[in-house]
Amino acid sequence: MIGLQDYGASGYKIYELIARLYPICRSITGDGLRQTLETISEYIPLQVHEVPTGTNVFDWQIPREWNISDAYVKNADGQRVIDFKKNNLHVVNYSVPLSRKMNLNELRRYLHTIPEHPDWIPYRTTYYDEAWGFCLTQRKLDAMEDGQYEVRIDSTLSAGSLSYGEWIIPGETDERVLLFAHICHPSLCNDNLSGVAMLVELARVLSSVPHRFTYHFVFAPATIGSLSWLSRNENIFSKIKHGLVASVVGDSGKMHYKKSRQETAAIDRAAMHVLKQSGKPYEIVEFSPWGYDERQFCSPGINLPVGRLTRSPNGAYPEYHSSADDLSLVKEEFLADSLETYLNILCCLESNFRYKNLQPMGEPQLGKRGLYRKMGGFQDVEILQLAMLWMLNQSDGTRDLLDIADKSDIGYRQLDRAAVLLTEHGLIEVSQD
Amino acid sequence: MIGLQDYGASGYKIYELIARLYPICRSITGDGLRQTLETISEYIPLQVHEVPTGTNVFDWQIPREWNISDAYVKNADGQRVIDFKKNNLHVVNYSVPLSRKMNLNELRRYLHTIPEHPDWIPYRTTYYDEAWGFCLTQRKLDAMEDGQYEVRIDSTLSAGSLSYGEWIIPGETDERVLLFAHICHPSLCNDNLSGVAMLVELARVLSSVPHRFTYHFVFAPATIGSLSWLSRNENIFSKIKHGLVASVVGDSGKMHYKKSRQETAAIDRAAMHVLKQSGKPYEIVEFSPWGYDERQFCSPGINLPVGRLTRSPNGAYPEYHSSADDLSLVKEEFLADSLETYLNILCCLESNFRYKNLQPMGEPQLGKRGLYRKMGGFQDVEILQLAMLWMLNQSDGTRDLLDIADKSDIGYRQLDRAAVLLTEHGLIEVSQD
Amino acid sequence: MIGLQDYGASGYKIYELIARLYPICRSITGDGLRQTLETISEYIPLQVHEVPTGTNVFDWQIPREWNISDAYVKNADGQRVIDFKKNNLHVVNYSVPLSRKMNLNELRRYLHTIPEHPDWIPYRTTYYDEAWGFCLTQRKLDAMEDGQYEVRIDSTLSAGSLSYGEWIIPGETDERVLLFAHICHPSLCNDNLSGVAMLVELARVLSSVPHRFTYHFVFAPATIGSLSWLSRNENIFSKIKHGLVASVVGDSGKMHYKKSRQETAAIDRAAMHVLKQSGKPYEIVEFSPWGYDERQFCSPGINLPVGRLTRSPNGAYPEYHSSADDLSLVKEEFLADSLETYLNILCCLESNFRYKNLQPMGEPQLGKRGLYRKMGGFQDVEILQLAMLWMLNQSDGTRDLLDIADKSDIGYRQLDRAAVLLTEHGLIEVSQD
Repeated sequence: MIGLQDYGASGYKIYELIARLYPICRSITGDGLRQTLETISEYIPLQVHEVPTGTNVFDWQIPREWNISDAYVKNADGQRVIDFKKNNLHVVNYSVPLSRKMNLNELRRYLHTIPEHPDWIPYRTTYYDEAWGFCLTQRKLDAMEDGQYEVRIDSTLSAGSLSYGEWIIPGETDERVLLFAHICHPSLCNDNLSGVAMLVELARVLSSVPHRFTYHFVFAPATIGSLSWLSRNENIFSKIKHGLVASVVGDSGKMHYKKSRQETAAIDRAAMHVLKQSGKPYEIVEFSPWGYDERQFCSPGINLPVGRLTRSPNGAYPEYHSSADDLSLVKEEFLADSLETYLNILCCLESNFRYKNLQPMGEPQLGKRGLYRKMGGFQDVEILQLAMLWMLNQSDGTRDLLDIADKSDIGYRQLDRAAVLLTEHGLIEVSQD
Repeated sequence: MIGLQDYGASGYKIYELIARLYPICRSITGDGLRQTLETISEYIPLQVHEVPTGTNVFDWQIPREWNISDAYVKNADGQRVIDFKKNNLHVVNYSVPLSRKMNLNELRRYLHTIPEHPDWIPYRTTYYDEAWGFCLTQRKLDAMEDGQYEVRIDSTLSAGSLSYGEWIIPGETDERVLLFAHICHPSLCNDNLSGVAMLVELARVLSSVPHRFTYHFVFAPATIGSLSWLSRNENIFSKIKHGLVASVVGDSGKMHYKKSRQETAAIDRAAMHVLKQSGKPYEIVEFSPWGYDERQFCSPGINLPVGRLTRSPNGAYPEYHSSADDLSLVKEEFLADSLETYLNILCCLESNFRYKNLQPMGEPQLGKRGLYRKMGGFQDVEILQLAMLWMLNQSDGTRDLLDIADKSDIGYRQLDRAAVLLTEHGLIEVSQD
Repeated sequence: MIGLQDYGASGYKIYELIARLYPICRSITGDGLRQTLETISEYIPLQVHEVPTGTNVFDWQIPREWNISDAYVKNADGQRVIDFKKNNLHVVNYSVPLSRKMNLNELRRYLHTIPEHPDWIPYRTTYYDEAWGFCLTQRKLDAMEDGQYEVRIDSTLSAGSLSYGEWIIPGETDERVLLFAHICHPSLCNDNLSGVAMLVELARVLSSVPHRFTYHFVFAPATIGSLSWLSRNENIFSKIKHGLVASVVGDSGKMHYKKSRQETAAIDRAAMHVLKQSGKPYEIVEFSPWGYDERQFCSPGINLPVGRLTRSPNGAYPEYHSSADDLSLVKEEFLADSLETYLNILCCLESNFRYKNLQPMGEPQLGKRGLYRKMGGFQDVEILQLAMLWMLNQSDGTRDLLDIADKSDIGYRQLDRAAVLLTEHGLIEVSQD
């Protein structure tokens, strides 16, 4: 059954993949993105798609493809004081090609730092504006002396395509669970190599066990990438019954579940149930149109039941979008814990049927079926018997297992076990209405 | 009017009946049960029904009738170390007949104690499993010496019937209030001779005053008894507008109202209103399918608006299902207080009409009808005038008196008094929609 | 735009009008009422209506008109110990004419004081009962010596009419906002010259700016006056989309918004939003059928979406209905603050459209329209951009701006600014459904 194994070893596997992907310079298009999808393909059989430059996706258009080979700022002595080869965050992502000399005063307008974290390089982008810039630590900037600098960016912007990958693991039905990670960030670990690598491991685990739903994994650039996928998959919207956006799953923060726009979708109730039952600290965040790609999945014309499960939320940990979001920020134990939480939620959804009591007049006699202890008079009841009584009492076809979990405060695994037993004895059946 | 008398004397009457019924050895069938119903018939005109062994009641079947004349465990010296004649809890209820010798080691498997209460005898049953056993205090067990014991149970299990009693007190309408007490427990006072005897007194009180509803009292064994009654009364389910399961009403615990499965039925709202207005401590318990016979009344195929009103809830007081649940546990004052609470709730239901304001354009002029003080300008308003204003304002035919009580935080008696006055002056009328 | 100016100067204007109206002896009919409406007509073009004595208004009838020229109680020395000319509260409002001698003992039955505030004269009325009386301070009463007194009331009760005034300021649509103040109280400032004078200033402000709604101001006596207006305006009930009863707006108490009977009308949500966003202390009061003329507007047959906005609520400040409710109780700063709150609520209602997202598939690309900052990667988002994202995400035609304000916790002004920008760029439009 999904989610009952020990996923300690998975933490290491996830971490290893993060480490492999970390050095690559990714963007919303380009070879870094392609190389990332190829690496993932070594783990799971990814189908890679290319969306040509100029293609319309809803209100957007695929931009020219960006590639970069080198970039630097050299001082008068010819030393690289800012060097893309040392850290790909140094160049504002999607910077236009450039080769100029300028003095520090002029150059400053193109330099970005985080004054309150003087040793960190910020991550900045200029996808949809023809511009350029460099990012560096405040300390490096403070040390730069007046004088002439040589500024060079060896990038190209030309017709190409946007790449994304997907893997569909068929289940007993074609009802789908969408699992999405954005894959466009360069050397940033928690956001979002952690989400990418965790989903890869999740896909591997799911592919090895039987399951009801068809699991649809998508690895794509943020915004324009998820929009591309959505615009090419309108025909399956109605099949998507649940979904999660995976990101920021490697840091030490407690789990944060952000509700879908629907607010009470099964994915929302399942995530809340699993987090509550986990006994660990967690937080439920109301839906808002700010964050990751749930913004697109939950736009009013699409409105899929897609929530978001992170550890720290976007923007809410200090290292967010800076060079400090490196390999030291993500830990095996948190990655494994995140994976397990994802699996528990999916397992909960797999169990989440509406049942119909087939003996609804009074309680059926559980004892004669060997489902109830023989001696009476005790002060309390065993949890599995109580779970059976709850399932019997509430299964009038209108309530699903998560509704009953909520009312009874009994974990979904006990209720599911009770449901299986009662089904075997012909006392309940899955409601088809 | 129901519920306005002082019920202090009733406490004594209830206690007396408990004391009369206490020594009888009852079970879910048998002569003890019959004797109990006969005793009750001395107080109210009970109609007694017999359901033959083998009759199907929903998923169940009436078992063979159990009777017992004697039972003991004798030591090597011929002394009765466990003696049914001293306390009928000593024999596991529904034990098969037996006459054997065995040593202590073997015997131990059939002995039941409550280690954490070494001076109490537990109450155990084996209704639906052919087995036997003895219950005794831990202290007695500890004192039993090795050696041979003579074990004898003079019981019979044979074709017979299950007995229950009912009394229907007709009201102005045939809309019914169901009042149920389980009557199968042997020498246990709070659970449930208190419920039985309190309902007997409640029936006597109700039979002496005019009332709207038809009150339907049922005294039956737990589970199989309530199921028997239900299976023979399906034709009146639609008439049952309200109901209460009465039990555990004699101890010092605060009142606990357990909601019906419907959760917002009038009985639920009436009980909550009366308890809130009482000014005494109380607790509202959400519905769950564990407890007393509300489990049957509130099964999904039956789903009657039946709540449960106890003092301590089932299983939640230490003496529960033990010999310590004796005459010392129930007190006249608590029995009287429980009776009064039941009466208040019934009175509240009797008053709970939906009214229609016949002068709904603005406030009608209460002053010209002598319903409002003549001088104006005061800082506050008298409670009865305020109650009239609330009744007038909210009576649009969609809200009943309990809804208005809830919104206004005014007690139902004041609102009912206001409703009577306004009705007399032609300003409101009962809504028939 | 409504509500963005500084209304400091308005506080003085409102106070001045209160001071002009303060000396007049008003009642629910009579020349004092007429003189008050004439004074208001100097500020705004009031249309004055007269409803003849004997006219039926719903369940009521217009009483005879009351006028008074003098009233006193003279002691044996011929000194006026109680003198209407010193304070018009001295006479119970609507006292019948009288000229009698009586000793103190007899007289006492007609004298009214407030023992707990020995220096204050109470305000009492006897509109619908042919009676008379005098109000005085407890200290004055204590000083009155035994002996004969001459009691005289020079009042008249004769066929006449009840007067009220209204001003309708047309807007872009005939959807109306009702603004009502009761105008019958004699020399009492906070209750309700403050409400009257504040509405006059509010009308002046509104008449100088463009607006969507038609604003319908009504100045009428309490109860019989609002009933008169209602009975003559049944044909416009369906046009009244929002309304406020204005009273007690000059004291230092925090704002109290009392919900309409509908509880979740736009006026209720707007008032709650504005008060929450104000950053100042405030309280929300549930609807009850006790208070001012909201009692009539919110009677079940009329049930208009009319709330009430006061500072201290009725009856909840010590000076209420006494001579201490004088000019010293109302302050310019509180009057100005009340005016501003009213204007903010009206402005909020003016902005409260339901919009429809015209690009609902994913987020539209705000950047290419110059609506989004060009550089990406920042930790947070600017409030106006966030407001645009909320408007886009929630505008599916089912939610109005106040719903979105509630969900997003963003002020309605920001959301309205976002809505205007998005409308200009063709991304959303007002929903006509």
